[in-house]
Amino acid sequence: MGLKILNKQNVAETKFLNLVVTTYEDKKGKQKEWVSAERPGDQKAVVIVAIVPGGNLWIPSNPRLVVIKEFRVPLQGYEIGLPAGLIDPGHNIKETAVKELKEETGLDVVKFIRPPTPFVFNSPGITSEAISFAFVEAKGDISGEHLENSEDITTFLYTKEQIKTLLEAAADPGQHLMIGAKSWLIFEEFAAYGTI
Amino acid sequence: MGLKILNKQNVAETKFLNLVVTTYEDKKGKQKEWVSAERPGDQKAVVIVAIVPGGNLWIPSNPRLVVIKEFRVPLQGYEIGLPAGLIDPGHNIKETAVKELKEETGLDVVKFIRPPTPFVFNSPGITSEAISFAFVEAKGDISGEHLENSEDITTFLYTKEQIKTLLEAAADPGQHLMIGAKSWLIFEEFAAYGTI
Repeated sequence: MGLKILNKQNVAETKFLNLVVTTYEDKKGKQKEWVSAERPGDQKAVVIVAIVPGGNLWIPSNPRLVVIKEFRVPLQGYEIGLPAGLIDPGHNIKETAVKELKEETGLDVVKFIRPPTPFVFNSPGITSEAISFAFVEAKGDISGEHLENSEDITTFLYTKEQIKTLLEAAADPGQHLMIGAKSWLIFEEFAAYGTI
Repeated sequence: MGLKILNKQNVAETKFLNLVVTTYEDKKGKQKEWVSAERPGDQKAVVIVAIVPGGNLWIPSNPRLVVIKEFRVPLQGYEIGLPAGLIDPGHNIKETAVKELKEETGLDVVKFIRPPTPFVFNSPGITSEAISFAFVEAKGDISGEHLENSEDITTFLYTKEQIKTLLEAAADPGQHLMIGAKSWLIFEEFAAYGTI
């Protein structure tokens, strides 16, 4: 009754992304094709949801969410979203979260607020790319000194009210803001409840 | 100081997805390449966050979230997630949400709880694919009669407690559950607050 995978083949290969055609049988037994894009070695990623709590040297009052503005080549412009990075072979989710948060924002992970989520799937119609969300408390000074030459990232620490303002601005097409889909949901929750 | 796009070229083309190489200049003026996957015509999609309220003929007590289990060819298995669909040329977000919810689950949209979100970006490192979240109230009977032959979808109406159980099950690698990344965040919020 269900669908049946018959064959999977790379039709184009590059160092970073392959185009894959999977042949499958539909519910009536008819042969069909599905095209997807896959990272060589199925490299996974971590998305870092980081909060800098209030009541300390850095942030006197309300907690702030760590937001980045990053140039994204596929978008040909800046995305507003969350720190993230690929998990290198031999590394785990937590190590990668600590390393990427430092590299992209200059901030240090103080602790993991809860265990990282299992790997979940970004856009299963297009790719099997999987990510884990790591929820962390962070501290330190914002810095771009650890960025690579191909990374163009600015970090912001936003209160709940600032996130609300950002969401309102993004709803205005004239502002041309590009926001990550997962980030949007985190922003909505932070704007509503002030927590992650 | 920033990155500069120089050129964009399809290196492989299929009916559903193209592989694109974008040449850009990094911060030091060095020429580099970024590979992404793009739908021809940049077709966008809508993700439907649907709730069936309690206190009526269908659901006597607590509100339920509409969850689907869908065979995803790129995953070679079932994803647990939310109804979604591509926006056909000439159609808008709301029309597509109504049509896709009906096709995938049999349910009818009663009303839009709030305006659909602006288009946000699923996985900007891999693709410029953009989606809008439509938050709706739904009613009716679950049915698979509107499914296409290439769609293998089962619909569930889950309470907050059932979503909690689902998230706990997914955290156990032995269960091999595959959950959508955006769905995960919606599930976490529904499990915590019982709302969308």
